[in-house]
Amino acid sequence: MPETTKGETNTVTNPADGSLRASQERSDAIEADIEKNPQRYRVLTGDRPTGRLHIGHYFGSIANRVRLQNAGVESFLVIADYQVIYDREGVGAIQENVYSGIADYLASGIDPERTMIFTHSAVPALNQLLLPFLSLVTEPELHRNPTVKDELEHSGNRAMSGLMLTFPVHQAADILFCKANLVPVGKDQLPHIEVTRLIARRFDERYGRAVPEAPVFPQADALLSSSPAILGLDGEKMSKSRGNTIELGMTADETARLIKKAKTDSDRHITYDPENRPEVSNLVLLTALASGQSPQAVAEQIGDGGGGGLKKACTEALNDHFAPIRARRAELVADPGYLREVLHAGNERANDVADATLDEVRIAMKMNY
Amino acid sequence: MPETTKGETNTVTNPADGSLRASQERSDAIEADIEKNPQRYRVLTGDRPTGRLHIGHYFGSIANRVRLQNAGVESFLVIADYQVIYDREGVGAIQENVYSGIADYLASGIDPERTMIFTHSAVPALNQLLLPFLSLVTEPELHRNPTVKDELEHSGNRAMSGLMLTFPVHQAADILFCKANLVPVGKDQLPHIEVTRLIARRFDERYGRAVPEAPVFPQADALLSSSPAILGLDGEKMSKSRGNTIELGMTADETARLIKKAKTDSDRHITYDPENRPEVSNLVLLTALASGQSPQAVAEQIGDGGGGGLKKACTEALNDHFAPIRARRAELVADPGYLREVLHAGNERANDVADATLDEVRIAMKMNY
Repeated sequence: MPETTKGETNTVTNPADGSLRASQERSDAIEADIEKNPQRYRVLTGDRPTGRLHIGHYFGSIANRVRLQNAGVESFLVIADYQVIYDREGVGAIQENVYSGIADYLASGIDPERTMIFTHSAVPALNQLLLPFLSLVTEPELHRNPTVKDELEHSGNRAMSGLMLTFPVHQAADILFCKANLVPVGKDQLPHIEVTRLIARRFDERYGRAVPEAPVFPQADALLSSSPAILGLDGEKMSKSRGNTIELGMTADETARLIKKAKTDSDRHITYDPENRPEVSNLVLLTALASGQSPQAVAEQIGDGGGGGLKKACTEALNDHFAPIRARRAELVADPGYLREVLHAGNERANDVADATLDEVRIAMKMNY
Repeated sequence: MPETTKGETNTVTNPADGSLRASQERSDAIEADIEKNPQRYRVLTGDRPTGRLHIGHYFGSIANRVRLQNAGVESFLVIADYQVIYDREGVGAIQENVYSGIADYLASGIDPERTMIFTHSAVPALNQLLLPFLSLVTEPELHRNPTVKDELEHSGNRAMSGLMLTFPVHQAADILFCKANLVPVGKDQLPHIEVTRLIARRFDERYGRAVPEAPVFPQADALLSSSPAILGLDGEKMSKSRGNTIELGMTADETARLIKKAKTDSDRHITYDPENRPEVSNLVLLTALASGQSPQAVAEQIGDGGGGGLKKACTEALNDHFAPIRARRAELVADPGYLREVLHAGNERANDVADATLDEVRIAMKMNY
C-alpha cells in the first residue's frame, strides 16, 4: 500500500512551527530529495477552469508540474470545476475552458499516463470526504483561512456562499483523496496546506485507522514555488478580464501584437530591476524564462536597445519557446475525441483512487456496514 | 420521468408565505390527497443512529412512516450516519445502532421493497450534491436555521463544527437526491424544509435544467405531524441518557419494571390534562396510542384507579401492542445476514437514484464533459 506509507517513509523531518522560514527549509530539503527519491512523493496540483490558461500559468505552475512529472513524481491534476462557482453565480464557458485547459496541459508536456487529469465534479467519493472533514474543523477555523478572510473583507455587502466558506476543506479533500504528500504552492497558500495537515491529523486522532500501522491520510508538505510572479503586460496582475495576458493558445502574430502594446518606460538602457522598473523587468523576466537564461543576462544583451529592442527580444523568445507547444496544441484541439478520452480515462482512474480511499475512511469510521 | 413531474402534477396550491397556519393548511390538504393519489408523493424520512430506537420514535414517526408506505407512497428512509458526528466527537456504537434500527423498522412494518432503507455514508452521489448546494446559500442564511442557531446559542465556548453549520444543506441533499416532495416533520422543523425549497428554486434559477420542461428538483412540502409529543417516564424529554425511555427491543418485563418506576402524582382520579398533569397524561397518552383509543376514554376507564391502575393499564397496552413487533424483532436480530442484505440492497438502489440525479445536475451545470 504505497499510498499510506509515502508520508511515513519520508525521512526529512517536519518543522514544529509553521513559520515561513521553516517551511522554506523543508521545501528546499524535499526539492533536493526529489531528484534522488521521486517515488517517495505524490503531488496534487490544479486549476479553476474559469478561463483560458496563459503564460502566467505556464511559467508559474504548468512548467513546474511537467518538471516534477518528468522527475518521476506521481502526479494528480484536478480541474477544479466546482471551485468556479464559489465566488460567481454561473459556470461560464466551462466546457470550453476544461477542454482548452487539457489541450494546454498536454501540449506543455503533461503526460496523461503519468499525470492523472480529472474534473472535481466527476469524482463523487472525493466529494464525499467533505462531510467527515467538515466535522473536524470549526467555523472560526474556516474564517481564519486567508482566502476566506480575504473574501470576507473584500466582498462588501455580498454575503459569502457556503461553498466559499468551506473552500479550505474542499482543498483538503482534493489533496487527501489521492493521499498526495506534496503540494506546490506560493507562500500565501501555506495556510491551505496547514488546514489539510490539521484535518489529516484530527481524522487519525478522532476516527482512527483502516489498518493499525498507518494513518489513513499522510501529512502533506508544501513545495514552495521558486519562480517569481509574472505580471500582466500593463504591469498589473495578470488576468483575463484586464486583457493583459498572452494565452497559450494564441498565435505568434497575436503574441507580437500584444507585446508591442506592452507598457515600458523612457529609459533606453534595459536593466532587471523589478522593484523600480516593474514593467520593463517583467518583459526581461519573460524573455529569460522563455529562453532559459538569467534575467540579468537578457538585460545585458539588450543593453541600450530600449523598449523596442526589449519587445523584439521578448516576442522572439516567447514565440520560439511556444512554437512547438502551439503546434502540438493545434493538433490536440483538432481531435476533441482524444481530449475527451484523456479526461474520461483520468476521471475513471481518479474514481478508483477515491473509492479506495473512501473505503478506508469508512473502515476507520466504522461505517463499513 | 415521474420524479421530476411529481412536484408539478401536485394540484394543491402552495402558500405564498411560510406561516405556520398556511403550512398546516397545506399539510392537511396533502394528507387528504394522499388517500386518493398516493402515487403523487415521494417521502423522505430518517433518523440519526445515535442510540436504540424507543417508543417515542415509534409513536412519533415510525408508525406514521408505515402508514404512508402502506397508503402507497414511495418512501425513502435515510439512516443519517454522518449526522451522528455533527455535534459529537465519535461515532459511538454505530454498527450496532444501525442494525438495531433496521430490525426496529422492519419489525414495525417497514417493508424494504416499498421503503428504501440506506445509510448516508454509502451514497457518494448524494453527498456530492452538497457542493453545488453550498454555492446556493450564504453563511448568514445557514446561521438563521433554528438547529444551527440553537447550537450556536447553547454550545457555550465550544466552536461549532463545519458539519453542524452546513447541516441544513445536508438535509436538503437527503431530500432532493431522491426528489422527495414530501417530508414529515414537526412544526419546529419547517425552516429545514424552507432551506430545501430555497436550494431547489435557486438551483433552477442559477444553473438551469437537464430538460427544458421541468426543474431538476421539486419543491418539497412539509407533512406536519399530528401526533402529540411523548415525554420520558420522568416527565422530561425522552432521551437515552436520562434512562427514561422504553426501547422497542426491550422485553415485556423490562417494560413493566420501567413503567413501575414512572413518575405520577398523588391524585387518584386519572384525567388527561397534559398541561397540569404532564406525567400522568403522558402515561394515559401512551396507553391510548398503544390500544388505539382516545386519551380521554383511557382516563375514564381507569377512573379512580390511581397511579397503580394507570401503570397496569399502560404496561398491558404497550406489551400487547409491541408483543408481535418484538417477536418479529427477535427473529430479525437472530438473522444478521438478512439485515445486511436489506441494507446493502437499499444502499444499491439509493446509489442508482443518486447517480441518476447527479447526472441531471451535471447536465444542468454543463459539467457533463
